[in-house]
Amino acid sequence: MSSSISPLATPFPALPVIAGVVPHVARAQYKTWDRCDLTFVTLAEGTSVAGVVTQSKCPSPEVEWCRKALTLGTARALVVNAGNSNAFTGHRGRAAVEAIAARTAQHLGCQPSDVFVASTGVIGVPLPIDKAEAGLDAAFAATPCDWRAAAETIGTTDTYPKGATTTAIVDGRTVTLVGIIKGSGMIAPDMATMLGFVFTDAAVTPGFLQAALNAANRNTFSCITVDGDTSTSDTVLAFATGAAGNAPLGDAHSDGADAFAAALADLCAQLALLVVRDGEGATKLIEIAVTGAESDASAHRIAMSIANSPLVKTAIAGEDANWGRVVMAVGKAGEPAERDKLSIRFGETQVAREGLAVEGYDEAPVAAHLKGQEIEVGVDLGLGDGVATVWTCDLTHGYISINADYRS
Amino acid sequence: MSSSISPLATPFPALPVIAGVVPHVARAQYKTWDRCDLTFVTLAEGTSVAGVVTQSKCPSPEVEWCRKALTLGTARALVVNAGNSNAFTGHRGRAAVEAIAARTAQHLGCQPSDVFVASTGVIGVPLPIDKAEAGLDAAFAATPCDWRAAAETIGTTDTYPKGATTTAIVDGRTVTLVGIIKGSGMIAPDMATMLGFVFTDAAVTPGFLQAALNAANRNTFSCITVDGDTSTSDTVLAFATGAAGNAPLGDAHSDGADAFAAALADLCAQLALLVVRDGEGATKLIEIAVTGAESDASAHRIAMSIANSPLVKTAIAGEDANWGRVVMAVGKAGEPAERDKLSIRFGETQVAREGLAVEGYDEAPVAAHLKGQEIEVGVDLGLGDGVATVWTCDLTHGYISINADYRS
Repeated sequence: MSSSISPLATPFPALPVIAGVVPHVARAQYKTWDRCDLTFVTLAEGTSVAGVVTQSKCPSPEVEWCRKALTLGTARALVVNAGNSNAFTGHRGRAAVEAIAARTAQHLGCQPSDVFVASTGVIGVPLPIDKAEAGLDAAFAATPCDWRAAAETIGTTDTYPKGATTTAIVDGRTVTLVGIIKGSGMIAPDMATMLGFVFTDAAVTPGFLQAALNAANRNTFSCITVDGDTSTSDTVLAFATGAAGNAPLGDAHSDGADAFAAALADLCAQLALLVVRDGEGATKLIEIAVTGAESDASAHRIAMSIANSPLVKTAIAGEDANWGRVVMAVGKAGEPAERDKLSIRFGETQVAREGLAVEGYDEAPVAAHLKGQEIEVGVDLGLGDGVATVWTCDLTHGYISINADYRS
Repeated sequence: MSSSISPLATPFPALPVIAGVVPHVARAQYKTWDRCDLTFVTLAEGTSVAGVVTQSKCPSPEVEWCRKALTLGTARALVVNAGNSNAFTGHRGRAAVEAIAARTAQHLGCQPSDVFVASTGVIGVPLPIDKAEAGLDAAFAATPCDWRAAAETIGTTDTYPKGATTTAIVDGRTVTLVGIIKGSGMIAPDMATMLGFVFTDAAVTPGFLQAALNAANRNTFSCITVDGDTSTSDTVLAFATGAAGNAPLGDAHSDGADAFAAALADLCAQLALLVVRDGEGATKLIEIAVTGAESDASAHRIAMSIANSPLVKTAIAGEDANWGRVVMAVGKAGEPAERDKLSIRFGETQVAREGLAVEGYDEAPVAAHLKGQEIEVGVDLGLGDGVATVWTCDLTHGYISINADYRS
């Protein structure tokens, strides 16, 4: 991981063990670095799995592998490679994923289709099969690690490890959820996200797990953006071992099902914000709340237009209440908007109302708000009931420095 | 204008006088600066006009004024204010535009609807009517100026004045076209552009002029982007005085009509590239050529996805042949694409073909190409006959510096 930690970083929390889930890490040395870069997690027999992956038209072979394996709904292992995304590598990339699944299945005595694989790093270089196999063998031989080590090992340009936990009461028992995630740049998940992994001891059918993950994703991973650039490798997988012993959650409606879905959504929201807080070069976390749009979908597109505007993001980096750039970003979104009904606030202060600057508004609280690390921009369209909230970060010299010389 | 000139700047060319067109400039002092900021151009009676304006849903009152006045097809004057865009200023902004048109009409003895008004600068501050009227009166009293002075006066964050000229043979006579343009940031014209003005002595009906301008715009202004941020004020107007005395060009097809349309398209292409060359912080001019897409429209959207990708633009700023980011940008465009048919070149060198890196390609010419100021990226989708070419610039520390403290 990078040596300069994001000013928005939060401490890694204490994460509990999840019964049936055992993480390990090893050095595959996909790059010339002295750190673990292969994560291998074993999962108890009977583990359910659900996932969402990138909608990119140029997905990595790992994404294609997971998409196919998800149709079966069961999992025994997760393998994550850092430093090489293996994307855009043709038949050689596909062969690498197949080799990893085969080697893992051999060790565990399971089907290759029970092995989920994700990779992150440079695009266009086939993952070296020999290094992957040696790394897997080392991981099998290694002592299990804690979540922090796993979270560190899946990172690339990340500046701090990211994990979260929550619980829910299901069927009279406490079930526990843990998630780890990586991501810092190339973040504009399109119905999916960076590499994120959720583990729970709840007993859940694959169908219910997928439905709950889809719902959580809609308001969390799909509502964050760092740079508007959607990765070829975005993957979120959720694994449920069933070790908590609750009556399995399935299609039937129950309080436990609601509690589990709410807990999963809460966990995903925590993980998504951790990624934005590590946005490349970020110094401010920005929440964009759009109300009064013609529909929720329209509100989301307007919010994303603001969140991806380089001019809005640089203004906030400069602590400048340049709400004219917010107007610009609303106008270019291509969604219904009427200038003379538009209102804008920074923090709690209305700066424009119904198409006009608010005369003589107090600039002091606005300036104070913009000097903080957590910025709120509110936009009301005055047209209907559509709402959406998205999160992004500012655009700074740090982003340029990181990305003008990352590959080489 | 800014004191640090873009490294991609080209010298201001010698521009001829256009019979029937007389430019003047004056100091309205819309900002606290010591420079001319009001441009006033008189046009001979019988001048035809055509225009394209922003598709922003939050357009400036100037844009709304021009859109309405364009329906009449005739013009007697153009007034351009720099330093204040007058956008998002409600009824006070509308009143300012009406006052400018009325004062100008009074001076010229014409209809207010014959006066075209454009403004550029900060959003959200009503244009002060007293300064505008005093500036107009001063401009009327002033000696006419040359094109260079006019081009300098319409600029804001521009680092150099921008103008171009060309000619066409129409009806046995040489007609001359001159254009001036401003723009540097907030450049992603949506079927229109920054402020651009074209003047010709050709005799042309408003209908033909509009059709020729629409066609030119499609392949020029609508194919450039600096930051993906579409302005509230984008306006291109073309004025034809008829002083060349050719038989007026109208709906009938003729060699002269073709020659004029081609000359107009050439002029618009020159002007559009001048804007990209002055992109905020730009150090490289980038041409993105997409071929083999399912349609021209699809090719255009893919090319724009690449041209607006912060990761592609920072890689080129860093002279890094990181074609994996080009793959990413193709994948996120939402257009038909098949990873295993995709080919990519930098300059003349193929770096990826049919979904794989070209093994052992010669990196020397690629590195040399990327060290230059004019970069070509070619992408072939391998699917159909759709083509598109767009132009952008790199994303550098300069962009951040300019935009993190522009307003205040």
